[in-house]
Amino acid sequence: MHFMVDMFQPPRGTRDFLPEEMLKRNWVLDRIREVYEVYGFEPLGTPAFESWELLKVKSGDNIINQIYYFKDKSDRELGLRFEWTASLARVVSSHRELQMPFKRFAIGPVWRYENPSEAHYREFWQADADIVGVSDQIADAEILATTVDCLRSLGFKDFVIKLNDRRILEAFIELVGMPEEKALDIIRSVDKFGKIGRDGVVKELSKYVQNEDSMIKLLDLISIKASAEDVLEHAAKCLEKQPEGVKGCVALKSILDYSKPFGYYDYIVVDLTLARGLDYYTGPVFEVSAKGYEDYGSIAGGGRYDEIIGLFGGEPTPATGVALGIERIVQLLDRKNGFVNLRLGVEVLVSPVSESVKSTAIEVAQSLRKSGISTTLDLLGRGLSKQLNFADRKGIRKVIIVGEKELKKGCVTLRDMATGDQKKVKIDELPSLLAPLPRC
Amino acid sequence: MHFMVDMFQPPRGTRDFLPEEMLKRNWVLDRIREVYEVYGFEPLGTPAFESWELLKVKSGDNIINQIYYFKDKSDRELGLRFEWTASLARVVSSHRELQMPFKRFAIGPVWRYENPSEAHYREFWQADADIVGVSDQIADAEILATTVDCLRSLGFKDFVIKLNDRRILEAFIELVGMPEEKALDIIRSVDKFGKIGRDGVVKELSKYVQNEDSMIKLLDLISIKASAEDVLEHAAKCLEKQPEGVKGCVALKSILDYSKPFGYYDYIVVDLTLARGLDYYTGPVFEVSAKGYEDYGSIAGGGRYDEIIGLFGGEPTPATGVALGIERIVQLLDRKNGFVNLRLGVEVLVSPVSESVKSTAIEVAQSLRKSGISTTLDLLGRGLSKQLNFADRKGIRKVIIVGEKELKKGCVTLRDMATGDQKKVKIDELPSLLAPLPRC
Repeated sequence: MHFMVDMFQPPRGTRDFLPEEMLKRNWVLDRIREVYEVYGFEPLGTPAFESWELLKVKSGDNIINQIYYFKDKSDRELGLRFEWTASLARVVSSHRELQMPFKRFAIGPVWRYENPSEAHYREFWQADADIVGVSDQIADAEILATTVDCLRSLGFKDFVIKLNDRRILEAFIELVGMPEEKALDIIRSVDKFGKIGRDGVVKELSKYVQNEDSMIKLLDLISIKASAEDVLEHAAKCLEKQPEGVKGCVALKSILDYSKPFGYYDYIVVDLTLARGLDYYTGPVFEVSAKGYEDYGSIAGGGRYDEIIGLFGGEPTPATGVALGIERIVQLLDRKNGFVNLRLGVEVLVSPVSESVKSTAIEVAQSLRKSGISTTLDLLGRGLSKQLNFADRKGIRKVIIVGEKELKKGCVTLRDMATGDQKKVKIDELPSLLAPLPRC
Repeated sequence: MHFMVDMFQPPRGTRDFLPEEMLKRNWVLDRIREVYEVYGFEPLGTPAFESWELLKVKSGDNIINQIYYFKDKSDRELGLRFEWTASLARVVSSHRELQMPFKRFAIGPVWRYENPSEAHYREFWQADADIVGVSDQIADAEILATTVDCLRSLGFKDFVIKLNDRRILEAFIELVGMPEEKALDIIRSVDKFGKIGRDGVVKELSKYVQNEDSMIKLLDLISIKASAEDVLEHAAKCLEKQPEGVKGCVALKSILDYSKPFGYYDYIVVDLTLARGLDYYTGPVFEVSAKGYEDYGSIAGGGRYDEIIGLFGGEPTPATGVALGIERIVQLLDRKNGFVNLRLGVEVLVSPVSESVKSTAIEVAQSLRKSGISTTLDLLGRGLSKQLNFADRKGIRKVIIVGEKELKKGCVTLRDMATGDQKKVKIDELPSLLAPLPRC
């Protein structure tokens, strides 16, 4: 096949981020990293591509087909990472010297060959935090606390945390007599309850299950809406003869208990239809959305996957984690004007009015930079009106005009671009007048 | 061909960075980004892979062979980026609305299929800052100021900036009557002067040039060591009939003049043998090393490339920039103990001594985190001595022991892991006692 390639465009499904957009993204990534670090997560670096063997181990067919596969010049089979968990599992399996619990974060791009759309890009960023080596629900609870504080630090105030346990859903499927071998397909359909509604789920389910009664029964049982405690009580009662289901209920009750000292109890909704797409979850799963923006979908999600690390040999090692979806968060923040009051980008333009003051203008710029003030300097020897126009278009708030006459008195003119106000100020006073503004 | 793949290893030529190493790398990247931003550079995001067409445009054969090439599932030819400049050129060519000058930075991994060694990895990080749209040497001078301040912020104090202009070297080659069509090969050989010495260069040159006299003459002319001004005067005198060579001398003189107000004049050495490997430089080129560690090679380098952006059609657009090599910088900082006094990683471990105080321990951890203190919490219900052992191995400096008896008085025990000192403190006083430490 031959395609006309437009060299000027980024490859299909990928995007360029011009500075205005990139400053927002970096602000989001910085806030998330801060919170991950404050919660005691540590960074782990792994390569952008992994061996194909590794990527295949934990991937269902639907993911395998989305991996960017290639061979290196020695015919090694490789693939771009499509999420962070395989690499984490590899590192934990091969570094037995790691102290447990191992709390790591990873923030960066992942690649999936999907049909590009507004919601799906082929290169997108995920910010993951995981706790390896703890089977107690305190780890799941801490992951949720971390998630909520990440979102708080981004300016979100109120949340809906949907919580379920994969074992509960599987036990219900067993209880109503649905075929066990279809459990994964059924789970994936039920998981769409929030998006396609009850009727949509019934339609999907009928692909896998002939018995309409059991379908209706399942949906009746799991679509109950009540307080978290009441939903759990209902589930525990229904599932008292399903030991795995009971374990799921106990696990969720434990998370509810921990959520009180962690400080996010009020946000929890136990939603028995929640399943999460990926096959590898083994216990509690969750999705978080911003209250008032639930129609936007979840902006963070995760759960417990106690079996993946064991797949690579060695001891079975419990693990639980969260992934924050950076593109969704940035889009949602844009929509709720979450970036409007931030001060991102260059603060000051230093404008020499003639060749003879260029040296002094450089010195002024350097002194501001030494004080941590983001400063740009006119490099094109433009006339003042062009320089002001440039500052205006770039959203630079302050311009320091360096003119010959004022300079003789050790002064420059400080212009506020928002108001147009200008005043003469001593050069030495500039750093304190323009002290760096907090990032948020 | 078939290879035994060890799934537990990162792919050949790539590495994992465990937290201890990654914390150092992130510290380095953060310092560089801070300085780039303070100089008014803005972030630009481009995909990890680009169309093969694009990557081919500006690459010599030796680079082309190092690109990770692959096809996507629609048979589009792609390649992982091997440096940042092609993507920058693409964005500038396709976004004519960008305000000039366009000062952008990009920090991230690049990939080259090289023979792996301690000095060469197949995935490595580059931190680039470039100024597009300015032909005056003030832009080159600002790039150098940015570079020096990046390295200063990493704790380097003294520098050697080797400076040359490609046009001077080309003019000397012409002057001694060496064949013009071999100029690029000759330049590449001469560029190794610092590494392989005069004899080595002579040996390499004899591959391209038969006339030994011209070789000796060239090397005599360009290996002059004197003050920056004297070297330039010598070059200008020799090249007075080579107009491009004269332009090179004028450009370097201009950078020298600008370097005074920018504040790095003392570091400049004009080295007429410096050429820089890449083919695309058109004017001033430079390399920076840390004084006292010159044998380690350069840790930053760059130069002017006025013709690349024009290759993509549209107006010729001048550009100049620098790339900082992250692996070299991290290695060198390690060697000079540059990370020893930094406080990286988790500050505090909160240790509940029994199940009954777990809730309070969670609350204590949450209050410290709210104050920005990097805090981890024992999640395994271990005995105290195991918890202290964990803190010790992880280099955590403070442990807060939450015990039943002290708790009745609203107190916990604060242990300093370095000294072993313990004292009882009120819970409310903890955040101020443990106020977050500056990152550097």
